[in-house]
Amino acid sequence: MSEFELQSLNECLEKHLPPAELKEVKRILYGLEEEQILEIPASATDLAKEHDFEIKGYRFNARPEQTRRPRLVRVGAIQNSIVLSTTEPIERQREAIWNKVKTMIKAAAEAKCNVICTQEAWTMPFAFCTREKFPWCEFAEEAEHGPTTRMLSELAKAYNMVIIHSILERDVEHGETIWNTAVVISNSGQYLGKHRKNHIPRVGDFNESTYYYEGNTGHPVFETEFGKLAINICYGRHHPQNWMMFGLNGAEIVFNPSATIGRLSEPLWSIEARNAAIANSYFTVPINRVGIEQFPNEYTSGDGQKAHKDFGPFYGSTYVAAPDGSRTPSLSRSRDGLLITEMDLNLCRQVKDFWGFRMTQRLPLYAESFQKASEPDFKPQIIKET
Amino acid sequence: MSEFELQSLNECLEKHLPPAELKEVKRILYGLEEEQILEIPASATDLAKEHDFEIKGYRFNARPEQTRRPRLVRVGAIQNSIVLSTTEPIERQREAIWNKVKTMIKAAAEAKCNVICTQEAWTMPFAFCTREKFPWCEFAEEAEHGPTTRMLSELAKAYNMVIIHSILERDVEHGETIWNTAVVISNSGQYLGKHRKNHIPRVGDFNESTYYYEGNTGHPVFETEFGKLAINICYGRHHPQNWMMFGLNGAEIVFNPSATIGRLSEPLWSIEARNAAIANSYFTVPINRVGIEQFPNEYTSGDGQKAHKDFGPFYGSTYVAAPDGSRTPSLSRSRDGLLITEMDLNLCRQVKDFWGFRMTQRLPLYAESFQKASEPDFKPQIIKET
Repeated sequence: MSEFELQSLNECLEKHLPPAELKEVKRILYGLEEEQILEIPASATDLAKEHDFEIKGYRFNARPEQTRRPRLVRVGAIQNSIVLSTTEPIERQREAIWNKVKTMIKAAAEAKCNVICTQEAWTMPFAFCTREKFPWCEFAEEAEHGPTTRMLSELAKAYNMVIIHSILERDVEHGETIWNTAVVISNSGQYLGKHRKNHIPRVGDFNESTYYYEGNTGHPVFETEFGKLAINICYGRHHPQNWMMFGLNGAEIVFNPSATIGRLSEPLWSIEARNAAIANSYFTVPINRVGIEQFPNEYTSGDGQKAHKDFGPFYGSTYVAAPDGSRTPSLSRSRDGLLITEMDLNLCRQVKDFWGFRMTQRLPLYAESFQKASEPDFKPQIIKET
Repeated sequence: MSEFELQSLNECLEKHLPPAELKEVKRILYGLEEEQILEIPASATDLAKEHDFEIKGYRFNARPEQTRRPRLVRVGAIQNSIVLSTTEPIERQREAIWNKVKTMIKAAAEAKCNVICTQEAWTMPFAFCTREKFPWCEFAEEAEHGPTTRMLSELAKAYNMVIIHSILERDVEHGETIWNTAVVISNSGQYLGKHRKNHIPRVGDFNESTYYYEGNTGHPVFETEFGKLAINICYGRHHPQNWMMFGLNGAEIVFNPSATIGRLSEPLWSIEARNAAIANSYFTVPINRVGIEQFPNEYTSGDGQKAHKDFGPFYGSTYVAAPDGSRTPSLSRSRDGLLITEMDLNLCRQVKDFWGFRMTQRLPLYAESFQKASEPDFKPQIIKET
């Protein structure tokens, strides 16, 4: 690892590159002829200053259409560190995170966000690395009736905002099992539904199969006043077929609440969610936490190294990618932050019409090919010299 | 479009960023702690100097294993402009390109390449933009017995090199139909087989469905002395399910011979093939031509603009992406070039074992979901407020 810690790739480029080069580099890296800055009201930036979080705003435009009005939606993505020590009582830990994020949600409301989404398992430290069940399983709560959903329902209604939040779920009605789940709360404050993480990692510090199974909720798309929304939780971003099914079900924005660290995945981070936006003609919003989390007991990472109590910083870098291949710069690699993006959802269909990826996707071919490939006696299509 | 034309993103960063920042930026952008330079012998670099093409070499290492020896393979990727005016007789045009590329293949042989691949439709200008059939269809030749395959078979045998080349194919036995086809020639000089482009674009200047249909050859993987190879031709790189099927059939290196221009696709270029390498735990080699091609008759681009005789430069930028998410810098955006990469194919299985993307891909779920989604009466999984 380098000793030098970069806070922001974008700021580094802006600092060092001459204007003409910078413009071309940004075009190639971000797909933007001109960065579209969204102005954030002072009431929101003041909150950010006072509570020491980053706030950034960008816009994605679409061309005017004759038969549809623009469908402008403001989306807020929140990345944050935990607040208290992981040795504190869990209800106090959770409340401290609630209080921090409530302020960020208030800033999002001041900036007129219509939809917000949290990072993965936002009410807790990412304790799955420990593979200990106690006390971490006690963070789990019911998706519909749990305290966090109840708390956020009030904010959703008060701010007229769809709130998507990603928690450790306890399913009381099915044997008190635990799931990794995203909950969608309508802007009316009503619980709209949930989605359970479809793909569960078994890699390094992320042996989450210790706690929960692969999700059994399919690929739901939540039709809200502010567009058709879906959630691909964390490790599911490595699976293009997972992204694809949300697209086939009609998603216009797919959130990717995550928790991931630098050594493991940082070079993949800017690629996967953006590729999904391109391939599926929708917006994607990958969100990652920040900070280092120390746990009371030591644990190992399955990498031959000594036991330790943390696995290094989560690298934040939340961004938004658009169906046309462009993207926003990332939030900081280390600070709490709120990324606000105004997007015209009409861009999704415009890009579909232009590139034609849906028309040309040959779905029946792949349904059949995947079926064959999943059979035990599958013979790969191999050609050899005879 | 910017007036400033960047030759190389990588060189621009190297020129302007301080060393510590450069190292971190490269780690984030390319996924490399340290760039691994492959030394190229003088006999090859001399040819490059003399014939004015770029030559670059990189290495991807894998960790030593106990039960398998390293499987080092040197792969050459060739990007080039056409040579003569498109108004010259087509056999002269082809021969001039042959001669240029033969020199580049000789350089690849001097650098001990085991496998090389050309760009898409390498024997001709990318005339499909014109939507004219004559004389362009006369570039088409038989995959197995055509003059280009015959010429390359001799080189393949002489240099002990697998050669993959991408041509306009005429299938004489099936009604003289035309296809966009990649031909694989074994290092013995024997014709090994072919693959036909699976997904055909209908976008902007690339209305290739004027000339050929979607391929009917499935997703073959060619098992050679130098690894299991496959070819995803051009527009197929926008379709993750296409990349995926080559992976399911066992590919270790997937080439992506392409022809694409800046305004259309450059921000997508660095994303898609690299995402495929990550998602499928194999190496990918996207190759794009360079230069501006002027056609004798004017044509339109379906974009409301006036008729014209060229559609701007192909941007080259050939690179290689590895299963661990790292990648090489790109070749030039405008010069002919040969990119040589030495890769240990053992990395593919090592990454599979580490990340577990294959194990966790839930193929039966997606076979069933794709099947449902392709039925005319498909109802998307939508959740609304009641």
